[in-house]
Amino acid sequence: SEVKKIAVLGGDGIGPEVVGEALKVLKKTEELFGYKFETEQALFGGIAIDEKGTPLPQETLDLCLASDAVLLGAVGGPKWDSNPAALRPETGLLGIRKALGLFSNIRPATVFDCLKDASTLKPEVLEGTDLIVVRELTGGIYFGEKSRRDTENGQEAIDTCVYNEKEVERIVRQAFDIAMTRSKRLASVDKANVLETSRLWREVVIRVAADYPEVELEHVLVDNCAMQLLRRPASFDVIVTENMFGDILSDEAAMLTGSIGMLSSASLGEGSFGLYEPVHGSAPDIAGQGISNPIATILSVALMFRLTFGYHDAAQSIEDAVKAVLDAGHRTGDIAVDKSSAVGTNAMGDLIVAAM
Amino acid sequence: SEVKKIAVLGGDGIGPEVVGEALKVLKKTEELFGYKFETEQALFGGIAIDEKGTPLPQETLDLCLASDAVLLGAVGGPKWDSNPAALRPETGLLGIRKALGLFSNIRPATVFDCLKDASTLKPEVLEGTDLIVVRELTGGIYFGEKSRRDTENGQEAIDTCVYNEKEVERIVRQAFDIAMTRSKRLASVDKANVLETSRLWREVVIRVAADYPEVELEHVLVDNCAMQLLRRPASFDVIVTENMFGDILSDEAAMLTGSIGMLSSASLGEGSFGLYEPVHGSAPDIAGQGISNPIATILSVALMFRLTFGYHDAAQSIEDAVKAVLDAGHRTGDIAVDKSSAVGTNAMGDLIVAAM
Ligand SMILES: CC(C)[C@H](C(=O)O)[C@@H](O)C(=O)O
Ligand SMILES: CC(C)[C@H](C(=O)O)[C@@H](O)C(=O)O
Repeated sequence: SEVKKIAVLGGDGIGPEVVGEALKVLKKTEELFGYKFETEQALFGGIAIDEKGTPLPQETLDLCLASDAVLLGAVGGPKWDSNPAALRPETGLLGIRKALGLFSNIRPATVFDCLKDASTLKPEVLEGTDLIVVRELTGGIYFGEKSRRDTENGQEAIDTCVYNEKEVERIVRQAFDIAMTRSKRLASVDKANVLETSRLWREVVIRVAADYPEVELEHVLVDNCAMQLLRRPASFDVIVTENMFGDILSDEAAMLTGSIGMLSSASLGEGSFGLYEPVHGSAPDIAGQGISNPIATILSVALMFRLTFGYHDAAQSIEDAVKAVLDAGHRTGDIAVDKSSAVGTNAMGDLIVAAM
Repeated sequence: SEVKKIAVLGGDGIGPEVVGEALKVLKKTEELFGYKFETEQALFGGIAIDEKGTPLPQETLDLCLASDAVLLGAVGGPKWDSNPAALRPETGLLGIRKALGLFSNIRPATVFDCLKDASTLKPEVLEGTDLIVVRELTGGIYFGEKSRRDTENGQEAIDTCVYNEKEVERIVRQAFDIAMTRSKRLASVDKANVLETSRLWREVVIRVAADYPEVELEHVLVDNCAMQLLRRPASFDVIVTENMFGDILSDEAAMLTGSIGMLSSASLGEGSFGLYEPVHGSAPDIAGQGISNPIATILSVALMFRLTFGYHDAAQSIEDAVKAVLDAGHRTGDIAVDKSSAVGTNAMGDLIVAAM
């Protein structure tokens, strides 16, 4: 079959280690399924600031644009935290989303059975929780105009939150489409009692809903959603919301599963291209010790196979392998109850490859 | 002693019922402690829309301005939900905050021992949780300019988030002051890696912190805070944040205590004037049945005594009475395990008055 080109951005902290294990999985997939991948690494985030003076070098962007998909580790660390905006890893993240047109962030919040005790929620509340947050990723207050000026009350700062109907419609349609493949329930989250952008958002959702009569739609105010996620997480199926609310709610949803070290995410645009990354961060405190958990990144590869390449057989093989390895009791330190028997990053990667 | 004037806005749904019980407590306080209150009721919210054509009639505002404090029940209900903005109860809420200069919303999230099983969090995680969210209430994206215009991508909506140094400084100082009276730990929540208003916010926090060397300060990004509230709620003491983030996080914090039906809040400006209200809403589904829980509103009176009048003896008496009634096993339906033995709104109010 056709060679698929994957841009590999290890990034900072534990990023390169966990991506290393994901590359082993790609290789094993070639052997087992006959798919062919061409991978090329590039600098991104803090390391790119150090080596190229910018978090998103042009050659990195060019590589991504010439690829079928991007696999990203994680970026950031205390080293760059007090840099000016242009020299911060996060700026690279915002830049790559915008430059690649990745307007949709898909964040499954799944409870792994073997990890459900890791949640701070009671097991009976968590029971049956399996939701996806679909977050708008290239609009809203993240990308609107920003400014400062002097006033009689000291400096004044301004952020602008902007959405147009087209931007709202494309993400909302995608969320309805995803809901159709699942339990056909969609919660659209906004703050329509206060924000004009939310009122526009809700109008579009109501209009688009007419094309999806089978989907049960609820409008939830963002403050109420933050509560309901805690009170009845299992009642949600797909949640769609704008950029800033999605940032907050997807992290809340991820944390309540107790499985945050295991969750993957996809950022998509028009067409099949996508950027895949674990939900967890760069964990600079444990970087380089070989103890980080590569599972979220390995599962990001499975997500890439499903959403970008349509390689469902290979995706299933990865997901089953992860489950088998966990069921056999293997754990990295972050998810081990008995830390002394924990396996390292490498060993976990090898176990999953062997189980495929 | 001097007569204190209290504007009483029952509002909608269960608002008038729960406020009715709070008025009994005011009366009992007069008898027990010799304080004198003059209360006057006014229309606010949905009922004001129905009777006066606006959620915040001028005479209601005038009454508040001529009072020492305001006691509010709750506003809103499905009846007004699809009204245009000017004819919605929430618009009255935003209007009263702005008109009375109530820039600070104080939301204690306390776990009531007898209700800790009502939380969806594990008891061991909740253990020791006792935090206050200090939310900026008259600035940010709530009150910035809003607009719509036509573009080639359909309608475009804009909200503007604005903060100046003075606005940030007054709320941040108040949060530091509150932290000084408690465990001296302050978490300032922002999104400084993305928003200009958050960068200004953080600069001001760092500057003000120099005046409070005893307070242990942490800066927490809003997405991370949404997670940490779930993971380590007991580690927070005072949380200070801007309007929109505060709306979301204060509701998340309230819900995780399991005691949401019991929580009170204060909205303060310069000086001692304040507006006090329960955190829960107008619960239109149970309005008029005499089964609502008046405790949050009664505790809002205690908060008024502490923060506006300095009547700590009377506040303590109310808080102790609530505790005694709960310890004796009395419950309204919302917090009863055995619903059949639940007491009604009136009975709960009477029990608390009797226990004072
Ligand atoms: C690092 C930051 C800019 C980013 C965001 O807010 O989008 C992160 O929190 C995320 O969710 O990917
Ligand atoms: C009703 C709404 C406008 C209000 C707000 O968002 O401030 C409410 O959620 C609150 O927190 O008091």
